[in-house]
Amino acid sequence: MNFALDAGVAVLQRTPATLRLLLAGLPADWTDANEGPDTWSPYDIVGHLVHGERTDWIPRARIILARGADRRFEPYDRFAQFRESRGKALTELLSEFAILRAENLSTLCSWQLTAEQMELDGEHPAFGTVTMRQLLATWVAHDLGHVAQIARVMAKQYREAVGPWREYLPVLDR
Amino acid sequence: MNFALDAGVAVLQRTPATLRLLLAGLPADWTDANEGPDTWSPYDIVGHLVHGERTDWIPRARIILARGADRRFEPYDRFAQFRESRGKALTELLSEFAILRAENLSTLCSWQLTAEQMELDGEHPAFGTVTMRQLLATWVAHDLGHVAQIARVMAKQYREAVGPWREYLPVLDR
Repeated sequence: MNFALDAGVAVLQRTPATLRLLLAGLPADWTDANEGPDTWSPYDIVGHLVHGERTDWIPRARIILARGADRRFEPYDRFAQFRESRGKALTELLSEFAILRAENLSTLCSWQLTAEQMELDGEHPAFGTVTMRQLLATWVAHDLGHVAQIARVMAKQYREAVGPWREYLPVLDR
Repeated sequence: MNFALDAGVAVLQRTPATLRLLLAGLPADWTDANEGPDTWSPYDIVGHLVHGERTDWIPRARIILARGADRRFEPYDRFAQFRESRGKALTELLSEFAILRAENLSTLCSWQLTAEQMELDGEHPAFGTVTMRQLLATWVAHDLGHVAQIARVMAKQYREAVGPWREYLPVLDR
């Protein structure tokens, strides 16, 4: 499937409310659980998504759009949430995410990107040249990957509790 | 994590609204897409969840609770949705799922299961003896596994569109 702005935005705008429904009000047994050492809980993942809204997607798109001589992106800090989420309740993070996402989509839509602008490029610190279209497709796939991760992390908490059904639930051993 | 009825129900009651938010109103490019031959789309998965509400979880729990001589479960028809969803819009399936789930949770809660009843058993057609507790934990993990699957199937539609970012998005190759 090629990336189309409307179809991508349709997913991006749903993620904050989807995560709120999935997580808000659940016991911490669910939201603070992870998959073992050096893995992330649903709480950690929401903080990571908040950080991306602040520092990654739209700031990178701005660098591409500006067409300057230096189009190198800042590296994404994959551990920022362990600092930035500190002391915050999950519901606060979910609200922050919803507000930032709405602002960012409003910015994106205001640009009314043309097909030509979708092919403008920037420089990823690891991959080199990437296009606006690839960046925006990645924003969507990144959301969906983390929704899948949250559901998987939660499912795994019942790995033992399901008894012999574990064999029929591949998500428990992924 | 041990299975506790309250924490399990908290997840089960969220699934219909989570899926509605994630899927309702999206273009069919998203909801009818799958991972290749003999794999399921989000539309197929919602139909599978509807079938489970009708024939699996609560009917099996009733067999266990009845403590009859024959406590063998009917096999789960993993392909029922290809018959039963025919001609139905995704929003219809989402509504059916929400109604059936609400009824089933109302039935479950009305039983006020005791710790002893949670250890009563039934006979799974493949695994043999399983307990009420394992059945209910499986209901929850099964929901979460399919939420993860839906997000993964959707993410994969952008496997090519993300360009070099594919390397950073393990969900695209899972």
